[in-house]
Amino acid sequence: MSYDPKTFKPLTFHDALARFRDGVDTPRAYLERAIETIREREPVVKAFAHLNEAGARAAADASTARWKAGKPLSPIDGMPVAIKDLLETKDMPTEMNCAAFRGNFPKRDNAAVWALRQAGAVVFGKAVTAELGGTHPGPTTNPWDPARTPGGSSSGSAAAIAARMVPAALGTQVGGSVIRPAAYCGTLALKPTQGGINRGERQTTSQSTTGVHAGSIEDMWQVAIEIASRCGGDPGRPGLIGPATTPAPVKPERLVVLETEGWSELDGQTQTTFETLLEQLRSAGITLLRRKDHPWIEALEQSISKGRATCHGVTNWENRWYQRNLLDQFPDGLSERAKATLAKAEAMRVDDYRAALLERTAAQHRHAAIAPLADAAITLSCPGPAPLWAGDTPGKPLAPRPTGDFVFNAPSSMLFAPAVTMPLLSVGGLPVGVQLMGQQHEDARITALSRWMVGAVKPVIA
Amino acid sequence: MSYDPKTFKPLTFHDALARFRDGVDTPRAYLERAIETIREREPVVKAFAHLNEAGARAAADASTARWKAGKPLSPIDGMPVAIKDLLETKDMPTEMNCAAFRGNFPKRDNAAVWALRQAGAVVFGKAVTAELGGTHPGPTTNPWDPARTPGGSSSGSAAAIAARMVPAALGTQVGGSVIRPAAYCGTLALKPTQGGINRGERQTTSQSTTGVHAGSIEDMWQVAIEIASRCGGDPGRPGLIGPATTPAPVKPERLVVLETEGWSELDGQTQTTFETLLEQLRSAGITLLRRKDHPWIEALEQSISKGRATCHGVTNWENRWYQRNLLDQFPDGLSERAKATLAKAEAMRVDDYRAALLERTAAQHRHAAIAPLADAAITLSCPGPAPLWAGDTPGKPLAPRPTGDFVFNAPSSMLFAPAVTMPLLSVGGLPVGVQLMGQQHEDARITALSRWMVGAVKPVIA
Repeated sequence: MSYDPKTFKPLTFHDALARFRDGVDTPRAYLERAIETIREREPVVKAFAHLNEAGARAAADASTARWKAGKPLSPIDGMPVAIKDLLETKDMPTEMNCAAFRGNFPKRDNAAVWALRQAGAVVFGKAVTAELGGTHPGPTTNPWDPARTPGGSSSGSAAAIAARMVPAALGTQVGGSVIRPAAYCGTLALKPTQGGINRGERQTTSQSTTGVHAGSIEDMWQVAIEIASRCGGDPGRPGLIGPATTPAPVKPERLVVLETEGWSELDGQTQTTFETLLEQLRSAGITLLRRKDHPWIEALEQSISKGRATCHGVTNWENRWYQRNLLDQFPDGLSERAKATLAKAEAMRVDDYRAALLERTAAQHRHAAIAPLADAAITLSCPGPAPLWAGDTPGKPLAPRPTGDFVFNAPSSMLFAPAVTMPLLSVGGLPVGVQLMGQQHEDARITALSRWMVGAVKPVIA
Repeated sequence: MSYDPKTFKPLTFHDALARFRDGVDTPRAYLERAIETIREREPVVKAFAHLNEAGARAAADASTARWKAGKPLSPIDGMPVAIKDLLETKDMPTEMNCAAFRGNFPKRDNAAVWALRQAGAVVFGKAVTAELGGTHPGPTTNPWDPARTPGGSSSGSAAAIAARMVPAALGTQVGGSVIRPAAYCGTLALKPTQGGINRGERQTTSQSTTGVHAGSIEDMWQVAIEIASRCGGDPGRPGLIGPATTPAPVKPERLVVLETEGWSELDGQTQTTFETLLEQLRSAGITLLRRKDHPWIEALEQSISKGRATCHGVTNWENRWYQRNLLDQFPDGLSERAKATLAKAEAMRVDDYRAALLERTAAQHRHAAIAPLADAAITLSCPGPAPLWAGDTPGKPLAPRPTGDFVFNAPSSMLFAPAVTMPLLSVGGLPVGVQLMGQQHEDARITALSRWMVGAVKPVIA
């Protein structure tokens, strides 16, 4: 089951609509095919924490009737969508892969889930998350190699796309939780501008974002815009803005190549493969600018050169009270990994947090400064293929990053910048993603550029 | 029990510390006096939704021991503080004066409550809130006239100060919920810069702020800064910044007099009383600037001239999913008043929300523009004395604003600006507050100016 980006075809929905209209296919039949795939792949992939097949069938039947009547609610009417198990769904538990939340079943819909239902989408599964959206992994395996992590924390969301179980899934990213798992699984994903999709009650971290995993650019954008047009963005933010259907492909003229903190840690094969891709872009007439080419790019690189630490400083502090309350209530409710993170947070003073915020704001200003230089920035989405993960070894220190390293994801997170990861590289038979990152609120622009990339650029296989 | 601002002396704590140090008084004895006052006044005032006397006594005893050992945790060690019943406390229910939350008892501390305990404060009561922090009133009456509203939604917090039950209380403000009740009850309050005090899990509205009600400027500032120095501000914000003890009084040189949307609706007596106060300031050598004196002030006045509508547009939308989920789960869980507000929110489109946000942002820019013109802005805190409130009449339409009109509070809320209300006016034997409003993050500056005002300005009685 080696990954070949040239032949792999994920499940798509946008191209099924004509057949729904003609009555040749129906959302119910589409759902049944998805359920069949889940039955086949789920025992190994373990993408789902919960499934609500009965509810999904009822929703798919209602959608089928709407298509039959020629009155679909939206272009995603009938689309099966998996929801990361951090987001509340009124018809399924929300357990966040956390012992403290075992059996937690609030009868509420997260704002984005509400919007999906309003658009007619079929909400039928909760996708496995790393514990509380952090680093302690769930049971999900990488669909291309069960010995490897699918990435995290939106582990199940990305794996479900790669295993062709669903055409789209919601994930969330604080440090790298949308882009990295998609990159390790060989799928597409949009991490919108900070606040682009209403997080509902989940507002306690300042740089988490709800994102969309999908098998096609078309489904990715459509899901995002259908949600945002119904429930908008986070409180105080305008939310994702863009065309009502997927923007047409746009070829970039100039791209900034960002090395980021991850460059010096790259393995040679991944670096060479990425450079080969860049060479292809250059041959296509695209100007590439790097840190040596312009002092403002160098300034930005310096500002994100400790991105992981900045993200940790911000996020650990912001999760502190939430997790302290959990631990006080459920002394066995958190993993050792989560407890270690909490201990770090509790060693912080408010001025440490303020310092991290200042770093973040300074980096955002430097990012804004490079806007006139290029159409977008391009960089890797992960530092190589998904690492092996066999679980913690009792008695040994905890492995630091069991769902992989977010070093290439920290920049878009701390810059509040939209990012799209594309499955354009294969290294050792495993996917490695490449991302485009835009200025804040340029979600539609990077979607258009990404659409050109995935259509026109030959994936590089090493 | 007519209100006389010249003779009324609220309960204070900062001036008890010397006696704690000397052993002449103790936090436990202080608490017992507070409990005695509560026993006396509570049957009519009804400020509290819950009391935890046993827990408070234990905390006061621990504080007494620390003072005895010469090792208090902070200058508010031993201070009894009431907590608005929207904020979670691990040792008391949080019912939000809402049927859907009856019996709700999460074993969690809101970040600010956690900080208060870290500073040694005695958390011993949940103060009545209007339903969910909205407009549907609780049972609390105005301590100066039980036929009148204490204001809302921080009804119990303000009333408890005015009834001398506690020296300080936490409230929250989205539209006018901290400043207005304090103004109606004749007490002090600080509504900090947006995000100044960490709201913990309560982040779903973009302009709500945790504020401090108090009987003295000293206690007001000390409580605010002790909290912020421990848990900071909202995620992504630096939080309240200022001196570790109350800033010294500063006499303003120049003040901008803001009329706001409320000016044309003022009764003559309140307006005359306020103008008399302004005349006193002018006589003291303070330059007063009004809308006719500078085009930028006029521009700001225009930008806040529909402040109530802007606040409603923003907040109704932001509460929409939360309240829809509640109503779906608990069809009888919301008052008719809350249901009517939800219906308005559900008639909104995302672009209506975006339009309200744009109004708000434009007003904030215009407010920033007047910074060089004066030390702060001054305006009324409420449009006259607290209105009579006898409850809804069955069969009649719901009274629109049973806890009073937030017309003078919408500006600081939508501008994210810090505001301090001072009990400087008495109209018809009832308190009317006057507020100073500063630029964002000038919390300490307006506290210093307010300290001068309450010390040097003679209250005006009409």
